[in-house]
Amino acid sequence: MRALVYRGGLALAEDYPRPRPSPGEALVRVRLAGICNTDLEILRGYMGFRGVLGHEFVGTVEEAQDRAWLGRRVVGEINCACLVCPTCRAGRPTHCPNRTTLGIDRHDGALAEYARLPVANLHEVPAGVSDGRAVFTEPLAAALEIPELAHIRPTERVAVVGDGKLGLLVAQVLALLGVELTVVGRHEDKLGILARRGIATCLEGEVPPVLERACDVVADCSGKPEGFALARRLVRPRGRLVLKSTFHGWSEVDLTGAVVDEVALLGSRCGPFAPALRLLERGLVDAQVLIDSEYPLSDGLRAFERAATRGALKVLVRTVEG
Amino acid sequence: MRALVYRGGLALAEDYPRPRPSPGEALVRVRLAGICNTDLEILRGYMGFRGVLGHEFVGTVEEAQDRAWLGRRVVGEINCACLVCPTCRAGRPTHCPNRTTLGIDRHDGALAEYARLPVANLHEVPAGVSDGRAVFTEPLAAALEIPELAHIRPTERVAVVGDGKLGLLVAQVLALLGVELTVVGRHEDKLGILARRGIATCLEGEVPPVLERACDVVADCSGKPEGFALARRLVRPRGRLVLKSTFHGWSEVDLTGAVVDEVALLGSRCGPFAPALRLLERGLVDAQVLIDSEYPLSDGLRAFERAATRGALKVLVRTVEG
Repeated sequence: MRALVYRGGLALAEDYPRPRPSPGEALVRVRLAGICNTDLEILRGYMGFRGVLGHEFVGTVEEAQDRAWLGRRVVGEINCACLVCPTCRAGRPTHCPNRTTLGIDRHDGALAEYARLPVANLHEVPAGVSDGRAVFTEPLAAALEIPELAHIRPTERVAVVGDGKLGLLVAQVLALLGVELTVVGRHEDKLGILARRGIATCLEGEVPPVLERACDVVADCSGKPEGFALARRLVRPRGRLVLKSTFHGWSEVDLTGAVVDEVALLGSRCGPFAPALRLLERGLVDAQVLIDSEYPLSDGLRAFERAATRGALKVLVRTVEG
Repeated sequence: MRALVYRGGLALAEDYPRPRPSPGEALVRVRLAGICNTDLEILRGYMGFRGVLGHEFVGTVEEAQDRAWLGRRVVGEINCACLVCPTCRAGRPTHCPNRTTLGIDRHDGALAEYARLPVANLHEVPAGVSDGRAVFTEPLAAALEIPELAHIRPTERVAVVGDGKLGLLVAQVLALLGVELTVVGRHEDKLGILARRGIATCLEGEVPPVLERACDVVADCSGKPEGFALARRLVRPRGRLVLKSTFHGWSEVDLTGAVVDEVALLGSRCGPFAPALRLLERGLVDAQVLIDSEYPLSDGLRAFERAATRGALKVLVRTVEG
């Protein structure tokens, strides 16, 4: 099958072996897949991954032991847990120490004609949610992990740092809570997407003094080490700083300052798919506005070039013809 | 001035004395006011109130020491706190033991041509929010008090008991969180308002077994003692039951059952106005669909008759001509 493969360099393989699902896994014919910043970080060495890239997708089940799944249009959670270790049995499968991760860690990904995933990871896509929306389920779930892990009150002042793809989804999710929200970014055009939806925004160099050390909750979605310092400038003493950025490399950070200000630093990664699908089905999050462009899989290398362009929004890869 | 006054019986007074604001208070020309179930409970003896009814309103400031308020279109929080007692200074003015409450407790209300309120209670209404929407700020704030006090996770299963005016607002607010939501009610037409917005509903006699003792959070908005028993049937062991109903009288309740099931019973009353206005401004809550009818103040007695009719939605009273 055709697949976008990373082995120290990115290449379009024409005859990559089609995945063979184990018992309990499904074979999914991928329809549409997205390129995430994490994919770009993998090209810089993140996770030391080798194999087929891609962890955002929508597809159709072609093989599964439970025949009820056959033909269903699905999205899939990316952490493949063992389900038998103490962590899994304690209800934390996304933290299973034996897990592999689709397109990120020892499990071939979805930027290909086919992918395999445990049936337990699949979620059927409601009929009213198009492929172009469903492909955002995974990053939208990651955005929903913020209100999943932290109690964010409607009266609180909240800032999002970063106006990239994840930042724009996080902003839309947090706006639904009724909070006093400001998104701090670097790109007037991307901030404009939010401003047109009634969400307050500002450029990094123009943060109003009223926000400095004044936000109850700040989510760093910048995807860059520098985002942390800006988020620390905004969060109030005893506030919460949610860490959403995953990048290759280390950060030099003033942890003592966090001690003195009694700031809570909350790591946050993958999130719940079911509420993401509910928000997409009810039209409460607009994913379509985040689409930059769409390429056929045969143009996958160009798709990655475009995704790596400064300011690019979500680049999609169409993995079926027509 | 003209006012709807309760003194053991409800009457339309034609020459009720116009309120005289103290320093720190504003005189508000009421434009539109709503009739709440609490008003109907007052007619049954709740709070032993005597005076002008009404605590849901939108109006225009006509007098205030701070002239910046003059002419502004406002809504107002209903608890008039002393702001100097230990409770107020601890940041809990809605629980001030010295408070009076607009139209509910020793403070004349807003079903009149004029009302007075502390300037600290006022919130300017954004230009894009019509009177017919702004008048719902107070009950919508009460709905927002649920996510204000409890951390409701996007992955949780939530039920709302009651399809009255408050229940329909609570349902719309909780749906924004992405939760798996079901509203249990008694009126097919009211449940239909939610169903058309993609919210799952069922009649009280047709609760699916999958919901029994299975909901992480249940909000009783029934306004009736019976709502508690139904909510208890739905909440899971170690779940949370939010008490939103305020009615005249006592409830006979199995508290031992709550001990055995380790259910948390969370009283919840007035809520925050600022996030309510943000949700109205962004069009995330549809208040207009909750309007039953509108009467001029001169027909105020008929307005109360209509509001007391079984199944009536929000009855509004227009307090200015034309």
